[in-house]
Amino acid sequence: MHDCLLIPGGVTAPAGFCAGAAAAEIKYKSKKDVAVLYSEAPAVAAGVFTKNIVKAAPVLVSMKHLTDGQAQGVVINSGNANACNGEQGLADANAMVNTAAEALGIEEELVLVASTGVIGQPMPMERVLSGVKDAVAAMNPSGGNQAAEAIMTTDTVLKETACEITLGGCKVRIGGMAKGSGMIHPDMATMLCFITTDAAILPSYLRQALRQAVDNSFNMISVDRDTSTNDTAVIMANGLAGNPVINGDGDDYRVFRDALTEVCVTLAKSMAQDGEGATKLIQVTVRQAPTLLDARLVAKAVISSNLVKAAVFGKDANWGRIICAAGYSGADFQPDAVDIFLGDEMVANKGCAVDFSEERAFNILSRDSIEITVDLHQGSFEATAWGCDLTYDYVRINGDYRT
Amino acid sequence: MHDCLLIPGGVTAPAGFCAGAAAAEIKYKSKKDVAVLYSEAPAVAAGVFTKNIVKAAPVLVSMKHLTDGQAQGVVINSGNANACNGEQGLADANAMVNTAAEALGIEEELVLVASTGVIGQPMPMERVLSGVKDAVAAMNPSGGNQAAEAIMTTDTVLKETACEITLGGCKVRIGGMAKGSGMIHPDMATMLCFITTDAAILPSYLRQALRQAVDNSFNMISVDRDTSTNDTAVIMANGLAGNPVINGDGDDYRVFRDALTEVCVTLAKSMAQDGEGATKLIQVTVRQAPTLLDARLVAKAVISSNLVKAAVFGKDANWGRIICAAGYSGADFQPDAVDIFLGDEMVANKGCAVDFSEERAFNILSRDSIEITVDLHQGSFEATAWGCDLTYDYVRINGDYRT
Repeated sequence: MHDCLLIPGGVTAPAGFCAGAAAAEIKYKSKKDVAVLYSEAPAVAAGVFTKNIVKAAPVLVSMKHLTDGQAQGVVINSGNANACNGEQGLADANAMVNTAAEALGIEEELVLVASTGVIGQPMPMERVLSGVKDAVAAMNPSGGNQAAEAIMTTDTVLKETACEITLGGCKVRIGGMAKGSGMIHPDMATMLCFITTDAAILPSYLRQALRQAVDNSFNMISVDRDTSTNDTAVIMANGLAGNPVINGDGDDYRVFRDALTEVCVTLAKSMAQDGEGATKLIQVTVRQAPTLLDARLVAKAVISSNLVKAAVFGKDANWGRIICAAGYSGADFQPDAVDIFLGDEMVANKGCAVDFSEERAFNILSRDSIEITVDLHQGSFEATAWGCDLTYDYVRINGDYRT
Repeated sequence: MHDCLLIPGGVTAPAGFCAGAAAAEIKYKSKKDVAVLYSEAPAVAAGVFTKNIVKAAPVLVSMKHLTDGQAQGVVINSGNANACNGEQGLADANAMVNTAAEALGIEEELVLVASTGVIGQPMPMERVLSGVKDAVAAMNPSGGNQAAEAIMTTDTVLKETACEITLGGCKVRIGGMAKGSGMIHPDMATMLCFITTDAAILPSYLRQALRQAVDNSFNMISVDRDTSTNDTAVIMANGLAGNPVINGDGDDYRVFRDALTEVCVTLAKSMAQDGEGATKLIQVTVRQAPTLLDARLVAKAVISSNLVKAAVFGKDANWGRIICAAGYSGADFQPDAVDIFLGDEMVANKGCAVDFSEERAFNILSRDSIEITVDLHQGSFEATAWGCDLTYDYVRINGDYRT
């Protein structure tokens, strides 16, 4: 992204944001598991949430609090998803919000809430609420890193990123943190993402930019095709950068949206690479598709196929599984026009085998990051999806963890 | 099924059918890999085929030959899927048909063809055609078992079944064989199924009965969500039982359809149980759904979830994964009305945790066959789906097989 400069830090990189974290022993001893994120100024906000009709209580509460397009704080816990806990779950999510609002000195409607962890277990509310107060007390302008640590459950890598763009002569920053797809004790590979920016932007354009960024990032990754009850991505824009308010589809909007997309793609790739048991990041790019939807369907089907994922784990250039997944994706295309590449190596041409070098293919598949290209040769649309290989450790993590 | 008597044998159990098999060394030395199935009398026939838009050549040829609703022979090979082989693939599938038709002394249009094995590799046609001739020469009225053996690739269990019903005072038989979801050298878990019957039935009712039976059996199993390029289920009805021709939706049709469904369910369960790497059969029944489609969507989503499959492998009563899969299935229901059972043990009530016995749940999950019931409590429709657990062996089989 030529307009977008990568900078250190995460959610506290933009002006006016601070964050804090605390260890509330929700699931583990002495691991930070509660985070609070706060904007000095009330912020325009937008969110996208799981499409699963089984929605966790914090998702329902946050959706409600976002209806006015405003937010100033977010309270998050790891170790318990607060899903399938009935009325008590809703009461607990609201109690987290109320405690955070009181400690922050803001209205409850300005606080969002998110949880990640095991489904169907009651929240240890005394410890949680005490942790919320501790996290608020610990808040500081460089606390983004600690917050990113606190939302990790089974992640092996801390996930944060930030960038800077220039809008109307003003430096504007976007920061983000996320958790997803851990390894030790996973339940649903819940994805949470929190993005901050000091950009000034109208709520409708913030929503539109977030939706577009998410469609090209988080909605294009898969670890195991299981859509969580808790998936949440929210953004707060507090306007402190002082840029001319983004109020239309012009250049500033595009620069902002592209930078936001870059932040989301960085976090999304980080989740795919840190997928449960994963040893490799897989990137599938579909070119020359008849529609954007077709491109996305094919890319996601290939990235989601257990057989493709297992073949990559085994370093097996089994392109038949790739075209097969494309074929059942629901996309419309002519199979006999399709070329498939592993890295730079063409493995199928016009839907049929080519006499490729097994040795070169094996070397490509031995890398940590595998690029698969599916060229449909019947249009001008392109999409990229990210995933990971299917390994023994995925089965171990998800099969053995309570025994 | 009170009207349906299980009898020994498979596709040659009904009157007037014979079958033969031969070893053509398509992939392995001295394993039978070509089968021919033949009806003495021309038969009414119907088929259902993969919805994958990447269709193997034999699928395209069989679809064409079934347009008149007539067939008298089927030629099948294992070891090579004849998929993604372009024009040569079509020529090869037609050559198999022509060679079989000539050896059987019938019209080419009366012969169907099916293949299963690796995608994108040329067929060794000299050996294949020689095998077709040998298989025809080996045909006999009790050859069903040998044919069922010849279509196995990576299956660990031979899959055939037969039953007898009484229609208008006549004994009518239905026999079937199938392959699917093997263990040693899989490619796409291709499913092939061939059913014979001596029932007299009009083509339109045969098609309708096959569609209904397949929707309740093969379309309700999943090993890895990968829809093959070669899936094929065909039925031939030669009328030699002498029953009054089934020409309406009356009692005879229902008895026939239910018996056909029973045959298909038996073969489908056998495939799920023999799924790649599987140690357990999982049966998911959804009750009291608002529509049949909702019931099927939920049952298939649960049976297909990697997280549910891994939890069953690990004997982990992780019901949160079950309701999560139900929630993203696309079905419409109220999460807070749902009860979930493992065997007889209720593990969730009205969408929330119950204090179930972990010991009893562990014992239930230690069985070879696991029954999960999801009661939506919001309608009168029911559906059952079958699958298997996700194991280390699944990853080994699909990851390591070419290395």
